[in-house]
Amino acid sequence: MKPIQVGLLGIGTVGSGTFNVLQRNQGEIRRRAGRGIEITMVADLDTERAKSVVGDAVRVVGDAREVIANPDIDVVVELIGGYGIAKSLVLEAIAAGKHVVTANKALLAVHGTEIFQAAADKGVMVAYEAAVAGGIPIIKALREGLTANSIQWLAGIINGTTNFILSEMRDKGLDFDVVLKEAQRLGYAEADPTFDIEGVDAAHKVTLMSAIAFGIPVQFDKAYVEGITGLAAADIRYAEQLGYRIKLLGITKRTDKGVELRVHPSLVPAKRLIANVEGAMNAVVVHGDAVGTTLYYGKGAGSEPTASAVVADLVDIARLADADAAHRVPPLAFQSHTLEGAMSSLPVLPMSEVVTSYYLRLRVADEAGVLAKVTGILAGAGISIDAVLQREADEVGGEGSTQTDLIILTHETREGNMDEALAQIQALPTVLAPINRIRKEELN
Amino acid sequence: MKPIQVGLLGIGTVGSGTFNVLQRNQGEIRRRAGRGIEITMVADLDTERAKSVVGDAVRVVGDAREVIANPDIDVVVELIGGYGIAKSLVLEAIAAGKHVVTANKALLAVHGTEIFQAAADKGVMVAYEAAVAGGIPIIKALREGLTANSIQWLAGIINGTTNFILSEMRDKGLDFDVVLKEAQRLGYAEADPTFDIEGVDAAHKVTLMSAIAFGIPVQFDKAYVEGITGLAAADIRYAEQLGYRIKLLGITKRTDKGVELRVHPSLVPAKRLIANVEGAMNAVVVHGDAVGTTLYYGKGAGSEPTASAVVADLVDIARLADADAAHRVPPLAFQSHTLEGAMSSLPVLPMSEVVTSYYLRLRVADEAGVLAKVTGILAGAGISIDAVLQREADEVGGEGSTQTDLIILTHETREGNMDEALAQIQALPTVLAPINRIRKEELN
Repeated sequence: MKPIQVGLLGIGTVGSGTFNVLQRNQGEIRRRAGRGIEITMVADLDTERAKSVVGDAVRVVGDAREVIANPDIDVVVELIGGYGIAKSLVLEAIAAGKHVVTANKALLAVHGTEIFQAAADKGVMVAYEAAVAGGIPIIKALREGLTANSIQWLAGIINGTTNFILSEMRDKGLDFDVVLKEAQRLGYAEADPTFDIEGVDAAHKVTLMSAIAFGIPVQFDKAYVEGITGLAAADIRYAEQLGYRIKLLGITKRTDKGVELRVHPSLVPAKRLIANVEGAMNAVVVHGDAVGTTLYYGKGAGSEPTASAVVADLVDIARLADADAAHRVPPLAFQSHTLEGAMSSLPVLPMSEVVTSYYLRLRVADEAGVLAKVTGILAGAGISIDAVLQREADEVGGEGSTQTDLIILTHETREGNMDEALAQIQALPTVLAPINRIRKEELN
Repeated sequence: MKPIQVGLLGIGTVGSGTFNVLQRNQGEIRRRAGRGIEITMVADLDTERAKSVVGDAVRVVGDAREVIANPDIDVVVELIGGYGIAKSLVLEAIAAGKHVVTANKALLAVHGTEIFQAAADKGVMVAYEAAVAGGIPIIKALREGLTANSIQWLAGIINGTTNFILSEMRDKGLDFDVVLKEAQRLGYAEADPTFDIEGVDAAHKVTLMSAIAFGIPVQFDKAYVEGITGLAAADIRYAEQLGYRIKLLGITKRTDKGVELRVHPSLVPAKRLIANVEGAMNAVVVHGDAVGTTLYYGKGAGSEPTASAVVADLVDIARLADADAAHRVPPLAFQSHTLEGAMSSLPVLPMSEVVTSYYLRLRVADEAGVLAKVTGILAGAGISIDAVLQREADEVGGEGSTQTDLIILTHETREGNMDEALAQIQALPTVLAPINRIRKEELN
């Protein structure tokens, strides 16, 4: 069979990795795919840099639309990123009958429904293994490996920057700001780290996983997103004393009422494998009703780890490029005509309807009766307590007045219920600072 | 599209699980597969038990050949196990033009080449996700998820019985025989546990993974197989003190000279995720040149976890049943015509050519100069030492003669080299018992 011809849009970190991996392993890849996979055209604004990567044998152009217009190109790989020009180019490539591979989680999480529909109408594939958790084949696991299961929930460390920061905070006992600067110096965090540290990147990824796990449309706008900027070194230390680690998790769960879709820091029991995923590594835990709990671990970013996923998509496409749609794996795991029906009508729940357990840190006056008042309010709201950690009082200010940290772990409750209880507790005169609330997940 | 019709051969633990999962999740599975998947016929020697599982809507027969002869059956699922009748039935099903799904690692590890060739000749698929690591989609990850990579090595905890035993030995400080009896009582070990505890089951599985990782033929007869029966509680304790856990690993590695293929107990650094896989759980670490180190974790056995893999294979087949071979994933990951060429000519190395590092436990007389003699022999063989642990001497026997355990961790060396050095050390009069040698893998 003749080689499949690939055009790259953008040849930065991941593009270079893709080119290099395809060159280096072309023999093995051809043996697996049954045909060659050749990058024959590259578009990049910086044509000089592009030429320095791909050499003379590949045509380099400055205009991505030249790649899309080339009738010899079978697959367009979009590695530009963002919601803007990338969206137009992906839609134009589909309209031109090209299969598309993309690592663009932001684009698919926000405009996935439109893009997948366009691909279905045109009879082409849109593959995006590289968009979630880099080189870990988690999209394939969810979409093909676990097809027997009614998936109950999944939770992932799917942003390497924040996991690196949290690992360093724990290891070295440092506060967020200090570690962020170190991460930027080392290249683990970008100059503008907002999308990472505020949880937006993780929310893009968990939104995609939620859609393929449950057969629901891509709904980034319904995701609850909370980053790690509010975490203190003290929280990490207290969590440790209670047998937990704090990780930024993307979580999606199926419940009777609907689907939970949320990103926030979470306490996880220290003995779970995922609690021991350190540094910039990624891992996703998936719980299916038949298979039970499974976990997938690896590098979530970087040139060749991400290229590993891009090339795996190219191999899949090479096999099925000229097959009809019934022979292909649907991009969102479920056949597209079933995404609108009754079975896919599970709503994404507002955060107030999420049921989880909590870690609470309260700065309180060290007076008799404070604990009784706090626990009384929780009991009144029907929230039961799992553990309490009360620290030795610190001497603060003059007149011998003292303060202390009061740490409470609760059992599960509805978030709306917890919000009401916390409002009451916050209003107590003996509660001296804003309460720090972190959710807790058992993940077993 | 009309439902695909499945015939089950054998409805024991995994067969019942497969039937139940397909029933319970039929709506979601149909949405994923694009067509229904129906078990319409079951063969089992115990027809009464079979009927009690599947009810009246499914035809139950005592003779598996009736299923194979039924022209309405599209896929035959072989869950009988073993090398005997299962082999004949699988080959007959293929000859009858049926696709085959099997969980039979023993059959494929020993007769895989013949079976896959027969399937290729007949144009049918043979799928076996359930044969390795139960519900973990590791075959799919290796064969499709990591196709970009030149896979360098993989190492797996792929036998739940032995991992349960090792976890209990460590937790409770008990010896092998005691824990084996407990495992048998709890149903984690079979009445005849030979295949598990001697490493044969793990060797079947790693043989299959080796073939798909490296594109070589299935060669169970070349695998080195060593079980856990020789492990003492003391080894587990000493390993722990040195920062390691002992796991039974199936390991396969690509080297310049050929492929290592081996099952044996291994020290693994305690901080690695795989060292923390406890009880009957399975995990496989795969290292690819592009992706780096990845890990896959889950239940390696049991009714529904294994059924999860069987049904995933059925979904794959449902999609591609009427596609031509070029559209399908080759059963051994590489196109079958490339399995005999130059690229697949990597030989499986004899154990003497394997390069690894070692843990050595020597029972020695507590006399001056013993350590110097032992380390001198190792140095003479070019084996360098990583760490030494010498215990306080025990008083043994009369006359004040004392003995002690001497623990040595070495750096990497060729196994043949180590064999020669150990023969010399064993011959020392101050070495009082057979030397215990356990291999050590860093897995990073």
